[in-house]
Amino acid sequence: MENQNRLNALQNYLQKENIELAMITDPTNVFYYTGFLSEPHERFLALVRDGKSDQWILFVPALDKDMAAESSIIENIIPISDEQNPFEVLQQHTSSGVVKVGLEKKAVNVFRYEAFQQIFPEAAFTDVQPFIDSARKKKSRSEVEKMQLAIDIIEKVLEEGIKKVKVGMTESELVGELELLMRKFGADGPSFSTIVLAGEKSALPHGTPGDRTINHGDFLLIDFGVIKDGYCSDITRTFVIGEASEKQKEIYNIVLQSTNTGIDAVQAGVPLKNFDIPARKVIQDSGYGEYFNNRIGHGLGMNVHEEPSVHEKNEDIAEPGLLFTIEPGIYIPGFGGVRIEDNVYINEDGKAEVLTSFPKKLMIL
Amino acid sequence: MENQNRLNALQNYLQKENIELAMITDPTNVFYYTGFLSEPHERFLALVRDGKSDQWILFVPALDKDMAAESSIIENIIPISDEQNPFEVLQQHTSSGVVKVGLEKKAVNVFRYEAFQQIFPEAAFTDVQPFIDSARKKKSRSEVEKMQLAIDIIEKVLEEGIKKVKVGMTESELVGELELLMRKFGADGPSFSTIVLAGEKSALPHGTPGDRTINHGDFLLIDFGVIKDGYCSDITRTFVIGEASEKQKEIYNIVLQSTNTGIDAVQAGVPLKNFDIPARKVIQDSGYGEYFNNRIGHGLGMNVHEEPSVHEKNEDIAEPGLLFTIEPGIYIPGFGGVRIEDNVYINEDGKAEVLTSFPKKLMIL
Repeated sequence: MENQNRLNALQNYLQKENIELAMITDPTNVFYYTGFLSEPHERFLALVRDGKSDQWILFVPALDKDMAAESSIIENIIPISDEQNPFEVLQQHTSSGVVKVGLEKKAVNVFRYEAFQQIFPEAAFTDVQPFIDSARKKKSRSEVEKMQLAIDIIEKVLEEGIKKVKVGMTESELVGELELLMRKFGADGPSFSTIVLAGEKSALPHGTPGDRTINHGDFLLIDFGVIKDGYCSDITRTFVIGEASEKQKEIYNIVLQSTNTGIDAVQAGVPLKNFDIPARKVIQDSGYGEYFNNRIGHGLGMNVHEEPSVHEKNEDIAEPGLLFTIEPGIYIPGFGGVRIEDNVYINEDGKAEVLTSFPKKLMIL
Repeated sequence: MENQNRLNALQNYLQKENIELAMITDPTNVFYYTGFLSEPHERFLALVRDGKSDQWILFVPALDKDMAAESSIIENIIPISDEQNPFEVLQQHTSSGVVKVGLEKKAVNVFRYEAFQQIFPEAAFTDVQPFIDSARKKKSRSEVEKMQLAIDIIEKVLEEGIKKVKVGMTESELVGELELLMRKFGADGPSFSTIVLAGEKSALPHGTPGDRTINHGDFLLIDFGVIKDGYCSDITRTFVIGEASEKQKEIYNIVLQSTNTGIDAVQAGVPLKNFDIPARKVIQDSGYGEYFNNRIGHGLGMNVHEEPSVHEKNEDIAEPGLLFTIEPGIYIPGFGGVRIEDNVYINEDGKAEVLTSFPKKLMIL
């Protein structure tokens, strides 16, 4: 039902913009509209709206045909086998002489773009991604309920997972334990590569877990999430092992104050930068400004990174329905880092609902 | 050293083709050339060769700056923070008036392509991906040794993992156990979403593990791999739980014969289709041709799917250095499926080396 409403809204938009044919190729967008979730890798997957013949067509890799038929609300499914040229199949099944074609400019690569230009030689190509992004960034209450499931799972994983932490364990081993718990608690999988970083490695905001062991006195940064029924969670907590030094406590509490300041600033009707600036100011005023070089947050939904981007220059006005992370940090090379990340929703009343509930006070493991 | 040789080969190619400026933006290609492996998500990551100023530049997201400095052989690193426009930064640091620009047409999306066209308005854009693909598809002996590590790990995981299988366990739970073993045995992570499918779900070649329990009499299909130091493995075995029916045994043995036939056909100097056709014929001759609709294999290396594509119409001649999967299957909707997948290398003598060694005879769990 929600899928059908989304398809109708897209169809209206395409008609209004005189886009005769549109191709949706981002797998997450295909899921958003059809209910069919897949990872086609390099194979061709496309939801096509052909306005001239007034039909929706779903092109899928042949090996996904049965799964697509089970889960998609589109009944007109064209399978493409590995030996076929997908662009020839596309051409056979779509109208010719099209002069305006819509596609997602961030999802279509130049190789495919040039093939599309050959299939539709008279067409101008226009970007339908901004329309889809702005549809997707406003989450309905039923979507928030699905997100909450993904958040509840990851918080249970965190609660149980920190009981598994032992001095001498490697970062990678802890990743394995955490991801096992994800499955046990009903996740479909991690929503991104689980980050577990110990000691000085916690200063790498996107570091990779490896053979470094978790030692007494280390920061332990855990940044992870799950995907459940197509929706993602994303939370970060930083712990200290055994005993915290004064400097660790100082940094931790500055970041905690920054996260809380960012959350407190969230509301509808003001520019998104208003959530970043005061949180950043907490860190700057305490003298650690040079150690926080990224945006305060990003949208979260069917993708773990989506609209909106919450940064200090984003003038877009926050609207009800936005769901995003607030995740300031201080990263001191060679020493270590702290990040504390919550997930926040701007509800129907324009007020912030914090969807994450795991305690944020410094915990010593 | 190997990285530097690769960079030199790329530089020679660019000079020969009069490509004044090249941008490598596929993260795996950036790793192949520089040694820096990362997942930039939507952020801008690019290895740039600026021939006019005779320099290599590595543009990285600001938060990856330290990691890039540690692992990249390129010393000229330009960080880009989230508030900056990456295309402005790119323009500031590269030569103007360039007339021929190289990029990877399958890695660059239309959004970025249009930005590049504005930065380099006089440029024609040419695809450097075929050059890179053909460099990457020929694996050196030292690369095969790294691949073998990833294969050895996944085979140990499989050996230990099947001991964890219990009737009543869900597919997802087994995924969790297998991925925990991956970490325990030293993997950096799964090389793709681990596939565990039970019973009739094994007929879905790219199905998603879920709440279905593993029951007596089920097929149990496990298709998975790990990534270790940037290289991937990918193996499939299919088991039967408790007791196999005559039809299960029949199908299994046909697929086994097909896999072996495919492997036996592998050698340098003949078209790649020669590996697919005889293996496919085994399945067709036994009357199950309609239940095998995909190619027999794909290249494997730093990506889990790369060149070459091994299918029944590929006329390209197999060369020493190729490394790929052989993975025929029979997938009967509503009944179940069998796939048996090995990893094969064409060595310096043009002969097949089967890198996987897990037994392929039907095992009852």
